[in-house]
Order: sequence, then C-alpha cells, then structure tokens
Amino acid sequence: MVKAKTWILKKYFEGFPKESDFELRVVDLPEPKDGEVLVEALYLSLDPYLRLFNRDFIKEGDVQYGGQVAKVIQSQNKAFPVGCHVFVHSGWRTHTLSDGSDLTKLPSNWPKDIPLSLALGAIGMPGLTALYGLEEVLQIKAGETVLVSAAAGAVGAVVGQICKIKGCKVVGSAGSDAKVAYLKELGFDEAFNYKTISSLEEALKAASPDGYDCYFENVAGPFFTAALSQMKKEGRIAVCGAISVYNDTTPQTCPFPHKTMLVNHLKMEGFTVWKWKHKDEESLQRLLTWMKEGKLKAKEVVTVGFENTPAAFLRMLRGNDIGKHIVKV
Amino acid sequence: MVKAKTWILKKYFEGFPKESDFELRVVDLPEPKDGEVLVEALYLSLDPYLRLFNRDFIKEGDVQYGGQVAKVIQSQNKAFPVGCHVFVHSGWRTHTLSDGSDLTKLPSNWPKDIPLSLALGAIGMPGLTALYGLEEVLQIKAGETVLVSAAAGAVGAVVGQICKIKGCKVVGSAGSDAKVAYLKELGFDEAFNYKTISSLEEALKAASPDGYDCYFENVAGPFFTAALSQMKKEGRIAVCGAISVYNDTTPQTCPFPHKTMLVNHLKMEGFTVWKWKHKDEESLQRLLTWMKEGKLKAKEVVTVGFENTPAAFLRMLRGNDIGKHIVKV
Repeated sequence: MVKAKTWILKKYFEGFPKESDFELRVVDLPEPKDGEVLVEALYLSLDPYLRLFNRDFIKEGDVQYGGQVAKVIQSQNKAFPVGCHVFVHSGWRTHTLSDGSDLTKLPSNWPKDIPLSLALGAIGMPGLTALYGLEEVLQIKAGETVLVSAAAGAVGAVVGQICKIKGCKVVGSAGSDAKVAYLKELGFDEAFNYKTISSLEEALKAASPDGYDCYFENVAGPFFTAALSQMKKEGRIAVCGAISVYNDTTPQTCPFPHKTMLVNHLKMEGFTVWKWKHKDEESLQRLLTWMKEGKLKAKEVVTVGFENTPAAFLRMLRGNDIGKHIVKV
Repeated sequence: MVKAKTWILKKYFEGFPKESDFELRVVDLPEPKDGEVLVEALYLSLDPYLRLFNRDFIKEGDVQYGGQVAKVIQSQNKAFPVGCHVFVHSGWRTHTLSDGSDLTKLPSNWPKDIPLSLALGAIGMPGLTALYGLEEVLQIKAGETVLVSAAAGAVGAVVGQICKIKGCKVVGSAGSDAKVAYLKELGFDEAFNYKTISSLEEALKAASPDGYDCYFENVAGPFFTAALSQMKKEGRIAVCGAISVYNDTTPQTCPFPHKTMLVNHLKMEGFTVWKWKHKDEESLQRLLTWMKEGKLKAKEVVTVGFENTPAAFLRMLRGNDIGKHIVKV
C-alpha cells in the first residue's frame, strides 16, 4: 500500500486561477497486480494548456490533469522494469498505478548530462509543439522570416532556435527586457519587449520591414491583429495558443480577420501537438541530437516540493519568469 | 471620336454607399491607333468586392472599377476583330480604348442559347470564385458536408451546385424565404433563412447534426462565429467574403477563434479568384459544360440603362434580390 498525494481541482477557474481552486488529497494505492506498475513522480509539468482546457478534460473533484516524468518503483510488467523512467499524463499526483498503456518510456539513449526534467520541456511536449508547428503547419523554408510571440516561453524559445537551425530569420516578442536579452542569447535575429513599445505595428515593421512569411501564434489579443497586418502575401499562421485571453472573464474580441486574410491569401491553422503522435519517437531523437550538438538550449524554472504545485502553476501563468516551469517532486 | 459615359467615384464610401458618391462624366475617346481597339460595354458587373476594395484599387475622382462584357466596335488589332466579345476590367464606362493587353476573349465556343452576360456571373468571375474556393482552397471530397453562407448570391449559388456535382452534402444559409426556396430548387440538401431562426447554432446543428467538414465563408458577423463552433475536427474554412461587415462604420468584432481552431485543428484560408488566373480558360470550359448539361443554373437581376448603374449597385448591396446583378448598358 502506497499513500499517493494528489492535487484535486476543487473548482473550475473563474478568471485568474487561485490556490484555493485546488485541494490536497491523500489516497491509498494498492500494490500493482499482474501487468501493472507503480510509478513515482520526479517532475510535474506546468503549462498554459492546463489553464486553457480547464473545463474540457476533467470535472471538479478530479485530480488536476498534466504530464509528469516518473520512475517505476514497483513492476509486474516486463515492459517497464523497476528504475525505468517514463512520461505519463496522470496529473498532479506523487504516485500512479498503471497497466502500462498510458506510459511512454523516455528515449533509452538519454544522455547522463541532460536533466530528465527536459522531457517535459525542450525534449518533450513543448519542444515537439514547436517542431510540428514549424514543420507540419507552417512548413517553413530557409530564408523565410518567422515571427513568434511569447518567444521566451517553453514553446517559443524552441521555435526560435529551430528557425535558426533551418536557416530562417526569426523575430521574437516577449514581455520583459530580461526575456529580450535571453532571446538574443538564443540567437533570435530580432526581439522586442511588447510592453515598452509605443506601437506593436511599428515594432513589427522595424524588426522586418518586408513583413513576415510565417507567424507562430501563442498569445491572441491585440498582438494577433497587429501581426496579421504585417503578414506577407501567401503568409501562414500557426495557432498554437492564446495566453493573453485565457484568464478573461469578459471575452476579448478582435476585428474580423477576413479582409486581411483574403487580400493577402493568408492561411491560418490551429493545431495541438497530439496530432502527430506517430512521429514523436523520431522527433524526440532529433531534438535530443540538436541539444547534444549545442544548437538547442533550454532554461527551467524549478519549484521544489509537490505541496507547492498550485503556487508554481499561478507563477507560471503570471509569466514573469524565463524558462519552462516544472515542479521537482 | 466617341463620347464615352463614365461613372466617377466622387467620394470614398462612408458606411452604406450613396448614389451621390458617384458622378456621371462624359469623356471624348480618340480613334484607336495601330494595335488598339475600341470596345463598347454590353453588360456591367455589380459585385460585393466593389464595396470591399473601395479604398484599395482607385482614388476619388477615378472611374469606378469593375468588370464588363463588351463588344469590339473598332479595331486596329488583328487579335480582336470587330464584333468579337471580350471581358475587360475597365470599370463603369460605356466605351474603352485598349491596346488589347487587358482584354480577355469570351470562349469561342460560347453557345448561342447562353446569355453573354453570364460571363460576368456563373461562367465568369463569381463562378470561378466558387470553383477555386471548393477545389483549390477547401479541396472538397465526395461525401463531405459543406456549409455556404450568402448561398443565394452569385458565388454561393454556384458553390452549392458544384458541391452537388461533386457528391457532397450542401447546406445553405440565406436571408429570405424566397431565397431558401430557390436554394432548394437548385438542389441544396438543406437551406434556412438566418433572419427568421431563433438560434444560428441550433439551425446549423439541425441541418447537419454531425457538423461540417467545410465552410465557404461569405459573410463574417455572428454567422462566422456560429459556423466556427459547428466545424468537424480537421475542418476547413475558405474565406471568400465578409458582406455583413463591409458597410460598418464602427467595425464589428468577433471572439478570438483561437481555441476552437486549435482544439479542432481547423484551417482557414483567405483567397481571391485572381490567384489561379492561369487556370481560368480551362475552368470556364468546365463551367460552360456543366451549364450545357443542365447541372449549373443561374439567375440574373438585370438593371437596364448605364445611367442606373449606381442605383443598381446599391440595390445589389441591399441583398433583397435573387441572382447575379448586372447592368444592361
């Protein structure tokens, strides 16, 4: 018998989430039966989509959903021996009992000098999101100019680095001077702090006077409308997120994008990383290789202690830190 | 010397256009020189895009732009002998002097029993718009369900009929019971009057409980948001027009489409017919063939007299008639 700590979603979020929307609950897990394994969480992943899909994936009273990197500590399943590291989307919990069907082993060639927690970041879902958004949705080509918003975020930072690997010019927008400095460090060609400029359109024009072939959209809000106005003819937009509107109680609206889209023959496509699951194994290897070669760097914001998970989640949503937010359990 | 009557755009439109935004002006045209031809307008085309691009194509004081079917009445150019029928985008004018570079001959096999004016409608730009929107943008497949708004319009009516030719289910929305009856006559599977229903979403659900694979968008406004909510996973939207917002003085807005687009992996693409000009000749033959076979029908709203062109334009924008609006010069 194992005592598993879990964080329950007590109440659907109204506006900006509160710590009191969650409740810590301890449950007893039985020993694994034949075919089952017990895994122990090492790192929990905190991502904007936890806010976005608040009312879609679970009900009030369920364990908050989310991904984690865990270690097998008891096993009745040969595929997952004790000590093996897995990714599992079992939510905010310290221990998970599984029949193995929801477990994904971390790549067996994971290098010793790369933290396992990156399997929740640049070598995990956010990294894959960046890769698929660029390759599958935008289909970027060398020489093109790519704009990315929330560029210092877990996804955006990888977007910019892959753009450089592929010979594109990349322009990033972020919300602090420290983030802008980080983007320059990562190799972004241009970066600006959208909070301190007087005009979004002017900033976008200054960073790329000829406009943008591609826009990797993470934010919505006024930035979306400004970016739309700066797209080149036949431009493409990948809709990955809309962080600036997730916490709205009164929904923000935008001018209809129709005229701009039809005059300039723009394409816009919404996507989630789950669409290309069949490519994940190969894609993670490519991300790993780029990291080993030094072409892909990653920063993390680590909160220690399972008890601090809700607070860390709110901190992630506030967006003041640089890097991928995780909880070290 | 020929006296050509022209309609000048005196003032850019503010809100709904007024007859006083135009001014009749007579100009003298010289005899055609070597290589030139003089054509006389037979029919002028009245289309929503004349409203949409009001400030984009011409300046105040220029002849109002637009397409026309004309007849060569004097020629110093062997490619365009006297008597030959052409399409020319020379605007609201009775006579045009041309070096031939802007003239397109009507298909030489144009059947005697098909009115030449249809070269401005189902066998012209609106018909091509429908065809390219369905084949190039939406890439419809037999068995799919297609939604089209402004379905009784010059483009929408062709959209519906091509959908049926290609084995799709087609649902049309229009603004009067008479239009709905016309859509049924054309073979639409479902049609409804959006002005007399209590809920757009419910009407869309009733017409296709499983949702829509494709949406041919002509209107914007609340219909767009409702349609977006009824798209199937991996649905496609072709943005052809936005008639409901063209005359806004205070721009209408819409909720950000991001979440719906990313959850359902929706694609949205703006287009104009001019993108596939290289295919026009072959495409017009296909439209002609369908018409000869009785698979494609067309209705026209004919205003007689060049003097009445502005009034006919306003009438077209009011949207109370059924069919493609033309002026018989």
